[in-house]
Amino acid sequence: MAVQTAVQNADSDAADTGAVDLGPAAALSCRECGERFDLGPIFACASCFGPLEVAYDLPSGTPEELKKRIAEGPDNIWRYAPLLPVPADVATKPNINPGFTKLVKADNLARELGVTGSLHIKDDSGNPTHSFKDRVVAIAVEAARAFGFTTLSCSSTGNLAGAVGAAAARAGFRSCVFIPHDLEQGKVVMAAVYGGELVGIEGNYDDVNRFCSELIGDPLGEGWGFVNVNLRPYYGEGSKTLAYEICEQLGWRLPDQIVIPIASGSQLTKIDKGLQELIKLGLVEDKPYKIFGAQAEGCSPVSTAFKAGHDVVRPQKPHTIAKSLAIGNPADGPYVLDIARRTGGAVEDVNDEQIVDAIKLLARTEGIFAETAGGVTVGVTKKLIENGLLDPTLTTVVLNTGDGLKTLDAVAPTTGPTATIRPSLDAFRDAGLATN
Amino acid sequence: MAVQTAVQNADSDAADTGAVDLGPAAALSCRECGERFDLGPIFACASCFGPLEVAYDLPSGTPEELKKRIAEGPDNIWRYAPLLPVPADVATKPNINPGFTKLVKADNLARELGVTGSLHIKDDSGNPTHSFKDRVVAIAVEAARAFGFTTLSCSSTGNLAGAVGAAAARAGFRSCVFIPHDLEQGKVVMAAVYGGELVGIEGNYDDVNRFCSELIGDPLGEGWGFVNVNLRPYYGEGSKTLAYEICEQLGWRLPDQIVIPIASGSQLTKIDKGLQELIKLGLVEDKPYKIFGAQAEGCSPVSTAFKAGHDVVRPQKPHTIAKSLAIGNPADGPYVLDIARRTGGAVEDVNDEQIVDAIKLLARTEGIFAETAGGVTVGVTKKLIENGLLDPTLTTVVLNTGDGLKTLDAVAPTTGPTATIRPSLDAFRDAGLATN
Repeated sequence: MAVQTAVQNADSDAADTGAVDLGPAAALSCRECGERFDLGPIFACASCFGPLEVAYDLPSGTPEELKKRIAEGPDNIWRYAPLLPVPADVATKPNINPGFTKLVKADNLARELGVTGSLHIKDDSGNPTHSFKDRVVAIAVEAARAFGFTTLSCSSTGNLAGAVGAAAARAGFRSCVFIPHDLEQGKVVMAAVYGGELVGIEGNYDDVNRFCSELIGDPLGEGWGFVNVNLRPYYGEGSKTLAYEICEQLGWRLPDQIVIPIASGSQLTKIDKGLQELIKLGLVEDKPYKIFGAQAEGCSPVSTAFKAGHDVVRPQKPHTIAKSLAIGNPADGPYVLDIARRTGGAVEDVNDEQIVDAIKLLARTEGIFAETAGGVTVGVTKKLIENGLLDPTLTTVVLNTGDGLKTLDAVAPTTGPTATIRPSLDAFRDAGLATN
Repeated sequence: MAVQTAVQNADSDAADTGAVDLGPAAALSCRECGERFDLGPIFACASCFGPLEVAYDLPSGTPEELKKRIAEGPDNIWRYAPLLPVPADVATKPNINPGFTKLVKADNLARELGVTGSLHIKDDSGNPTHSFKDRVVAIAVEAARAFGFTTLSCSSTGNLAGAVGAAAARAGFRSCVFIPHDLEQGKVVMAAVYGGELVGIEGNYDDVNRFCSELIGDPLGEGWGFVNVNLRPYYGEGSKTLAYEICEQLGWRLPDQIVIPIASGSQLTKIDKGLQELIKLGLVEDKPYKIFGAQAEGCSPVSTAFKAGHDVVRPQKPHTIAKSLAIGNPADGPYVLDIARRTGGAVEDVNDEQIVDAIKLLARTEGIFAETAGGVTVGVTKKLIENGLLDPTLTTVVLNTGDGLKTLDAVAPTTGPTATIRPSLDAFRDAGLATN
């Protein structure tokens, strides 16, 4: 029914005539049964209700030609336009232009963790609204444009609201974002400042989501692109750019190990998809790599299933400071289990105290102030080294997907001045800090 | 006396033997009397107490050769190493690597402001700690390394503390940052999270500064590089990179007009210095450009002097929401007046309400959430167009030097949901927002 609804709401002549230009995107295909559908604002298979994803006609030409083409592109995700569901001239359209964030060689952190290989932080706090969500939203914007949508929408508790608000403002869309009515003021400000409609829903995040599902099926929602619902197949592809950038920034080499946070699990599965594409295109050597998933103990359905050897993921009620990862029933959980097992990786979790410690460890060693999700990946990396699952002699990339400025509350109770003194040299000397 | 003290504290054999390698930096020269000094951690002329600045042996070779060398450099300020007081191999050393932030073509904002030429936002919120301070601190770090300092320090009320803490952590320095003891918790967390010493001083910002001056002159401060005091001549040069990036991102062209915020005024004077260097080197055409300074009405000593036709700047007691610009006695004020007058620009100010409006205008049109200082430059740009001082038919660049996440309080009282409703379609319909 969701499919029917979504198709009815495709408010676009282009979609109706099949003239949608999303570059190399050839069709949508069902991840479960493989059935293919024309490109459109649909997200579930009409036959089996499985999730749809974008299928590509990948570019021809030699790897060297493609690398040259990429290198000559802009310093953002559009350099990979030949591998994304976007038109070839995407870089000329107004968009938030995220990506090409720093891959930081984390030598200080490596020393602390006993890593003798090379350790890198892929730091997505450098994106325009300081989280990886800018990547996925930027792709959803181009899909919305292609399908003739005029309003961008989402349900959100934080990062996504800001990313949608900012991208809609730049790209010339109306936006209407739905949030639980009792969010912290800081998050509300971040969601509202871009000037779109912001609607507080009297209820929790589940209520907000349920309301959005109703709205998609109603005439009120006509012309609306919900980035993470009816545009989800396109939106999700934005995470592939993390794989592309990591490999390009390593000199077109695959890392040996990647540690990725798990919320819905989509990011992890799309990074794997991106790596597979690079191998297929010959842009990187075809060699083994291991993918590790990272969760907070207070919301660890995938980690729990992995450790128990299960193929299915049993939902949990989240209770963790890592709110951006607090999805108790992750849609891509089973795919994450597949990938972790296929590549020889693992899924691990850390508790809230370990998350805070890891945020501070990363800040103290590399000067990167991560969101709680970054504390989860760094904390899990430490744990995986300690329990022997991650090889410290290899090349490892750890994702930081957000910015510490957005989750100040996590570290505030334990982060403050080392001393408070009167403004005098005597007082400073007495404080015992002046060890040159 | 300040000079004597600073020289005594140069805890470095390199400095003593004159073997300091800071690339093309040849000497320090007095901006008032022109006297030259060997490179070292000094900041005031021994003869006339004027401020010292770095004098260069600029690179030889054709403009095309230099452009190629720059283009082949890293995607950060070190691509301009041949024009900065840093060693040639600077990019191989651990540093925070700021810069090469986005120059956003602001077509939506241009339409709102009636700009028919091209309008660009140089968005320094993309730096590692989300302000332009990362640029100046990164240069100070390399000077500190060259002079053998082991501790980085500063007095700060916000952005600078974070930039110093982060850079020190990455670069392997101890850090000790001094702040007024009663700062907002958010700012304290940002200053403390990088794990250096953070000392709250019982007093206001002036008391903190006075204390730091004492510390520089005391054996307790031996081996300490205060980025904005005894390393200030190097530190300040970091702002030149804004000029280089703007011109390179415009295709090696000078903008016609630049709007720059004024705190101490150093940033504006160094951007002018950078533009002059590019002209001298033949990297851009030698043509006129106008530099405009932007202040908050509640701290507008330079704007007041400009409008009154004065050459000197009378100190003011700051009272504005633009706290990162709230320097009542700006050291470079007279130089700013010179530059604004010489280039045919102006200095203008906007009040707090106009600052908030401008923050929201920029967010709503371009999806960029600026710090209050960005509200000042955008607000002043609007005012300069209205009063005919800025030509809307030309190419204009407006600086945003910081991130709205750091000054949420400025917009919070007037930024919130457009509606709060029950989770039902009827309630949504009744709210009157559903205009497709």
